[in-house]
Amino acid sequence: MANLRLGEELLLSFEKFLADLQLSQAEPTALYEPVDYILSLEAKRIRPVSLLFFQKLFGGSHEAALYAASSVELFHNFTLMHDDIMDEADLRRGHPSTHKKYGMASAILSGDVMLVQSLVYMRQAEHLASVPGLCDLLLKTAREVCEGQALDMDFEKQTFVSLQQYLQMIEWKTAVLLACCMETGTLIAGRADLAKSIYELGILVGIGFQLEDDFLDYYAQDNRFGKTKGGDILRGKKSALVLELAACMDAPTREEFLQTYQQHTQPEARLAWMEPLLEAYGIHAKLGERVQSYKDRAHSIIDQLAISSENREAIREWVGQILGRGK
Amino acid sequence: MANLRLGEELLLSFEKFLADLQLSQAEPTALYEPVDYILSLEAKRIRPVSLLFFQKLFGGSHEAALYAASSVELFHNFTLMHDDIMDEADLRRGHPSTHKKYGMASAILSGDVMLVQSLVYMRQAEHLASVPGLCDLLLKTAREVCEGQALDMDFEKQTFVSLQQYLQMIEWKTAVLLACCMETGTLIAGRADLAKSIYELGILVGIGFQLEDDFLDYYAQDNRFGKTKGGDILRGKKSALVLELAACMDAPTREEFLQTYQQHTQPEARLAWMEPLLEAYGIHAKLGERVQSYKDRAHSIIDQLAISSENREAIREWVGQILGRGK
Repeated sequence: MANLRLGEELLLSFEKFLADLQLSQAEPTALYEPVDYILSLEAKRIRPVSLLFFQKLFGGSHEAALYAASSVELFHNFTLMHDDIMDEADLRRGHPSTHKKYGMASAILSGDVMLVQSLVYMRQAEHLASVPGLCDLLLKTAREVCEGQALDMDFEKQTFVSLQQYLQMIEWKTAVLLACCMETGTLIAGRADLAKSIYELGILVGIGFQLEDDFLDYYAQDNRFGKTKGGDILRGKKSALVLELAACMDAPTREEFLQTYQQHTQPEARLAWMEPLLEAYGIHAKLGERVQSYKDRAHSIIDQLAISSENREAIREWVGQILGRGK
Repeated sequence: MANLRLGEELLLSFEKFLADLQLSQAEPTALYEPVDYILSLEAKRIRPVSLLFFQKLFGGSHEAALYAASSVELFHNFTLMHDDIMDEADLRRGHPSTHKKYGMASAILSGDVMLVQSLVYMRQAEHLASVPGLCDLLLKTAREVCEGQALDMDFEKQTFVSLQQYLQMIEWKTAVLLACCMETGTLIAGRADLAKSIYELGILVGIGFQLEDDFLDYYAQDNRFGKTKGGDILRGKKSALVLELAACMDAPTREEFLQTYQQHTQPEARLAWMEPLLEAYGIHAKLGERVQSYKDRAHSIIDQLAISSENREAIREWVGQILGRGK
């Protein structure tokens, strides 16, 4: 619970720091208003707060960490702004997506300047913390995030996607940024000796997070955030649930299954057809075990870190807060 | 003429280096094929070659300069790829623009990864040359280029744009990148003492280049590159020509003039209406003098550089090649 309070404190100090950067005051207004818009939508700020958490835990310059946290949050929102155009998404966090509100040209250009500015802030963090390599890590991460998004768009068009390909895609599209955040906080704290392990931990937590999201999309007990049960299936998305099911089948059956999944034009009919299959193949248990295996591997990394037992406990609790939501 | 040969040599070595980076081989193909496509369109490579020219002139690591040159060329092509979407341009250098060929989503994402990769190459240049600050310069430039594009899009919508506003816009949208290239080459060569002056020179050459382009669009003697005479006016663009004319008028006349210019729906009629006005206000001389004033200021900077008379002559010749085309 100490972590929960720490998380809230870090979130508050981050929001204040971000507001003080006064991106909303920058000119030309047409360029920076959309930036301010997407940043002001309510968000959990998991990435910047995770970065700040690891810096706080191990020490080092908090100001550097705040710049780095602003950097990753700007970067993340740049990807959301551009992804929403690519995915033709009208809504973002319950509000009009940026291109719906300001037009496509503005959303492209404002996204571009956010990517640029995210690197400016990371440079600032490098200077303040005297830690070289933070920008290199963000740039490597950024390239992988683009590659993950390219795979994701490619998968939309393809009928046959394997669970392994999907895991690679979510590693790049989602997990590497969380891992980058956790490593960056650790590096700013001067604990380069832990950087590799913390990065791996971030990958496992990031993939686990996404798999759990896919799991809960269908198996959540409560009505999470007003989401429709089986929303991924209704939209015909090839989520981990669908691909876990496909992975249970022999090759010809799998091929036929994925083709049928793709061809269904009635969302409700697709869901009704899927339900007995998920039951018959025991996907609740299988995907549940896969999520658990990521948690187990995450905890095994935590167990091996050369840190105080107090810090180990804090990290366990932190990871537990990110994973295991609603379970 | 020695410069001309040097320019050709630098262009060849740059093209070879860029090809050897093998961006065309990178995966996923869907992400990197559009990158390869836009880079393979025939181009003059003014920016990377200018960077290499200043490094060659003053010394330093040529490999670092080649990475930096690749960086700025990737950056420039990223802006072209995104600008073409924003401007709804179907053609780029006589070929289908990237989004026309690969779709908008691909052109957004491939542009993003080019921006990321351009910074990766600039980091590489920083490391090889042991010159910190190259990335900071590119990032500052990148932010200004975005701001310049935002102003340009804004001007399209506005009736009243002043010549001063236009000069600010082209400084950010065009000149800062050339200036960044010239300063980067100079910094890699270890001549930090010249950096500020060379940057200013780049700004003057960059603005002069654009003004000359606007001038020649209407006043070129020959049929340049198959372009239509007065193409800017036919398209209703508020170019330097139009704004130079507007600047000659008193406020009420200017307002009426710009409104009429904007409202003309017949391109040919707009051109026919403009021709006697350009003649009456002596715009050929006025804009010609303005272009000349940028050249004069550029040469005055060159005169004051603390360099050998041989290098001074080489820079004069170089600037003469960039400016003064076709005059």
